[in-house]
Amino acid sequence: MEIKYDNIKVVGFDADDTLWVNETYFREAEQKFARLLSQYETENKIDQELFKMEMENLDLYGYGVKGFVLSMIESAIDLSNGKVSTATISGILHLGKEMIAKPVELLDGVEEVLEELSRDYRLIVLTKGDLLDQERKMERSGLSEYFHHIEVLSEKKEENYRNLLEHLEIKPEEFLMVGNSLKSDVLPIVNIGAQAVHVPFHTTWVHEQVHESEDNGGYRTVNNIREILRFLK
Amino acid sequence: MEIKYDNIKVVGFDADDTLWVNETYFREAEQKFARLLSQYETENKIDQELFKMEMENLDLYGYGVKGFVLSMIESAIDLSNGKVSTATISGILHLGKEMIAKPVELLDGVEEVLEELSRDYRLIVLTKGDLLDQERKMERSGLSEYFHHIEVLSEKKEENYRNLLEHLEIKPEEFLMVGNSLKSDVLPIVNIGAQAVHVPFHTTWVHEQVHESEDNGGYRTVNNIREILRFLK
Repeated sequence: MEIKYDNIKVVGFDADDTLWVNETYFREAEQKFARLLSQYETENKIDQELFKMEMENLDLYGYGVKGFVLSMIESAIDLSNGKVSTATISGILHLGKEMIAKPVELLDGVEEVLEELSRDYRLIVLTKGDLLDQERKMERSGLSEYFHHIEVLSEKKEENYRNLLEHLEIKPEEFLMVGNSLKSDVLPIVNIGAQAVHVPFHTTWVHEQVHESEDNGGYRTVNNIREILRFLK
Repeated sequence: MEIKYDNIKVVGFDADDTLWVNETYFREAEQKFARLLSQYETENKIDQELFKMEMENLDLYGYGVKGFVLSMIESAIDLSNGKVSTATISGILHLGKEMIAKPVELLDGVEEVLEELSRDYRLIVLTKGDLLDQERKMERSGLSEYFHHIEVLSEKKEENYRNLLEHLEIKPEEFLMVGNSLKSDVLPIVNIGAQAVHVPFHTTWVHEQVHESEDNGGYRTVNNIREILRFLK
């Protein structure tokens, strides 16, 4: 299937792990969490139980650091049969605050690509997660000048994208989405008739993983975000 | 100072404690929290310490239930000098989940007012807090059909309002905001040259309280949201 980019007027970017590092910080926090609880269970078991807890709480808490911290605390109490110390719980709260205060680390090539594309396209950010967190990261990133619009969605499903494009008066055939998650940034976009470019990040959260067989074509995968410039210009 | 409503084309509504009950649930949770910790301190002291903790964490956590729960847990550890049981911490987590799962209770007159006004005005919702929480409440409220646009802001300051009106292409003189918080819904609106109606809710969070002397005029106060219909039609 040949992909045409001639009609594209608006380019949308995912933020976490597309513009800047994010998942790495969650993986680091999970490792620290496992270390805090190492007297109760193996790292592997702790990882699994925490993930289960996050999935159970996802509908209630949504995405973002705060819900993650609440799930870590609940998990710590469960995994230790209620024996976990308040010092450990304070340690978990501290892990969360550390994550929120992290500096924003831009991914390779991002600034160059935004600068180039902003001359010929309308650029927008479509991200998922905690509103305050995302606004803070955008501000710290120094990238906001490149974007016409920044939208924080509670979910990234076909319906969310369809409503947003309609609201912003963007036709699907004029829209290209760039992101690291096949599940959130690529497949729903292809399904609503827009274009997508997949820029994999080295780490993907299990919840965001899909099997390649779900790949229904119609999108391009690049190793570095810079490659977009080759076919979009 | 006479207020003119002839130019108004768009009416904005705050959500929490303007369209539906919210603050009451926080006050109830605070009372339950104080009861959980009653062996360590008086209710008054617990209230004060929790509020201090919330203010310390506000920049990091923002508004909403999840940050509130994290502050309750941190406060419980502090107030008990680390002696609080994991059963009590589980109780706090449960309080939070209860709050998130609460049904939406519309305030008196709201539906009638929205139905009337939606015939002649463009109605929007401008609310603060957690994105997922607010979307969920809007969905449960059954009110979304009345609104052209729903915006969740991380803060409600003059700049946030100015940017949003610009983005939605609404002139300040065509805009009227309706809300229960002088600090968030009324004063910044008056300061950017738009109109505001204050509909006090019986409970106001200390953080949202302002002294009446800060009242610089230019807005109207009503006891029930229905009164808007008298001067807006």
